[in-house]
Amino acid sequence: MNRIQRALEALVERVDTPAPIVLVDVMQDNIDRMQGFAAQHGLDVRPHVKTHKCVEIGRRQVKAGAVGITAGNVGEAEVFAAAGFDDIFIAYPIWVAGTKGPRIRRLAENIRLRVGVDNLAAINALADAMGEEPDRLEVVIEVDCGALRSGAPAEAAGELAVAARKRGLAPVGVFTYPGHGSSGPDARTGAAQDQETALAIAVRSLSAVGITAEVVSAGSTPTVKFATNNVITEVRPGEYVFNDLNNTRLGACTEDQIALFVAGTVVSDWVPHQVILDVGTKVLGREGSPERGYGGISGTTALLSKLNEYHGFLPLPEGFRPSVGTVLPVVPNHVCPIVVNFEEYIVTDSTGTSLERWPVDARGFLN
Amino acid sequence: MNRIQRALEALVERVDTPAPIVLVDVMQDNIDRMQGFAAQHGLDVRPHVKTHKCVEIGRRQVKAGAVGITAGNVGEAEVFAAAGFDDIFIAYPIWVAGTKGPRIRRLAENIRLRVGVDNLAAINALADAMGEEPDRLEVVIEVDCGALRSGAPAEAAGELAVAARKRGLAPVGVFTYPGHGSSGPDARTGAAQDQETALAIAVRSLSAVGITAEVVSAGSTPTVKFATNNVITEVRPGEYVFNDLNNTRLGACTEDQIALFVAGTVVSDWVPHQVILDVGTKVLGREGSPERGYGGISGTTALLSKLNEYHGFLPLPEGFRPSVGTVLPVVPNHVCPIVVNFEEYIVTDSTGTSLERWPVDARGFLN
Repeated sequence: MNRIQRALEALVERVDTPAPIVLVDVMQDNIDRMQGFAAQHGLDVRPHVKTHKCVEIGRRQVKAGAVGITAGNVGEAEVFAAAGFDDIFIAYPIWVAGTKGPRIRRLAENIRLRVGVDNLAAINALADAMGEEPDRLEVVIEVDCGALRSGAPAEAAGELAVAARKRGLAPVGVFTYPGHGSSGPDARTGAAQDQETALAIAVRSLSAVGITAEVVSAGSTPTVKFATNNVITEVRPGEYVFNDLNNTRLGACTEDQIALFVAGTVVSDWVPHQVILDVGTKVLGREGSPERGYGGISGTTALLSKLNEYHGFLPLPEGFRPSVGTVLPVVPNHVCPIVVNFEEYIVTDSTGTSLERWPVDARGFLN
Repeated sequence: MNRIQRALEALVERVDTPAPIVLVDVMQDNIDRMQGFAAQHGLDVRPHVKTHKCVEIGRRQVKAGAVGITAGNVGEAEVFAAAGFDDIFIAYPIWVAGTKGPRIRRLAENIRLRVGVDNLAAINALADAMGEEPDRLEVVIEVDCGALRSGAPAEAAGELAVAARKRGLAPVGVFTYPGHGSSGPDARTGAAQDQETALAIAVRSLSAVGITAEVVSAGSTPTVKFATNNVITEVRPGEYVFNDLNNTRLGACTEDQIALFVAGTVVSDWVPHQVILDVGTKVLGREGSPERGYGGISGTTALLSKLNEYHGFLPLPEGFRPSVGTVLPVVPNHVCPIVVNFEEYIVTDSTGTSLERWPVDARGFLN
């Protein structure tokens, strides 16, 4: 019996399913291990809160040594700023329209706020929004390193930084995201290499126009362990705090390092060699594929083969026959979608004896 | 320019993106059309609220003639009961453990509550939970019709109804869900046929043990138009209220009948023939496939080809080149996951002039 199974057995009478359960000791080990790795390599850690959206967990990350946090949108930044976080990077190519201009300005007046930019129009819109004090807003130029998502070509970073400075904003560095490192275990080193190359070019591009990149910021849980070069100053991993099956498969964590699972109940067992759990897409999202499955049962080889909204289809391996009413520990493929589906985490430890509830403070998208 | 594009153009200055926008006139037409269809065929409509989780929309469905509502779990039923809905069917094989027993009992004491059951253990657990007044709880026997999800074999319905009656519960009928009708346009009629056959067998199975099936309840938006036989008394469609691309592809609605879209902003455009929108899995879920895409832009042939959590990748068809800052109307493949990601709907009509905000009252899973 592994620690997830033990914890679930100890607390099963005290939770309603489906419920997201956090093993706080495993989570704390994950936080401390990331911080230790970063310290060893002279890197700052700025965890992405999209994975947990929880003030208490963010506080633990900062207490362990994180220099600040990363957010995915203005609403997340507002929730954490209101809770006392005073150094936040919205690592996203923000477009200010609607209420976003005044909201970013208000944040920048009260905390150290950094936002991502990758184009001239966005720089001008941000500067317009900041009014008389544009220099209160730090901007970080996003460059692409091969993920082909957002981000300017690395060579264009200097030009964008100059444009930002001309408008009075404070360009402080560059960032990128090696999303192409999540496609498989073999993709990680190549993507990390691409990341390093792009960031080095971007730093030189800033330097060529007389701007020092104080921040050279990199992703991500799958690739973080390769960020041990002389270019990168900061890493922004998110998933490491909980981990999940995808990261296990990528070699970015072990199964013992998974700190979040969903307790689900067998509600029906009529189909031979299959049971139905009360864990569907409204809990897990549709993260997976028919081949990889949509989540696994900890301590077994069983994988959810299909999800409806409130139903998880679980084909049963030989010798595994949980009856109706049995509560099983579901480990997500991708942990990040879980967080928007619940109001609170059930927080315990590997013994399953303690039980706290922590709110998902920044749940929802919050545009 | 279609009505979604017109509405978005009229209100774009007044909303932050991403935002879920409801065209209330299109939605009302969808509600009225379903009700008209059902009246014509002598069917009751009991809409599934999983799609909207919104009290105001549920009220409009009841006002238009729905006999009550369908919920997917106890929490949804509680939210709608607290708002005054007095006839609720939790169309799910409920397993009562933790707080669920007392909560179901409290609901059954205050409203007409029906719950699904498909096995003996669940029947006994429900009866235990109901204490002295088990007959206040109406149970509906779930049977399988080929979706191979939950539901007893249709022939076993009578036996389960007898067991429920023995324990003092009130067995009132049978239900099923033809989930296999969503696999493609050609699957709908076959699944509807399977549904009818299974329900007819289940009704006879109840009849053989002296129990009348007052309720013979069927799904679902894709198959509802084939529910025009003499067996079915009630339909439980959910998606029809908003509709989506999946239902358009199945032939269950037209594009003009889509009543919900997500306003998303172009935030980056560096990759040739592609832009990035601020609409990712934390808005749409990961509903789709690389082949079908993950959502479309209304009025164009453009389809999101890939989603990250806060980023939607949009390859651009020839002649379509929206600049950074452009707001586009994203139509989901599957509308149901949208609802758990936002606190409120932006409600307008096809002219885009009015603007109200309706809370997503039962957002989240709510176990």
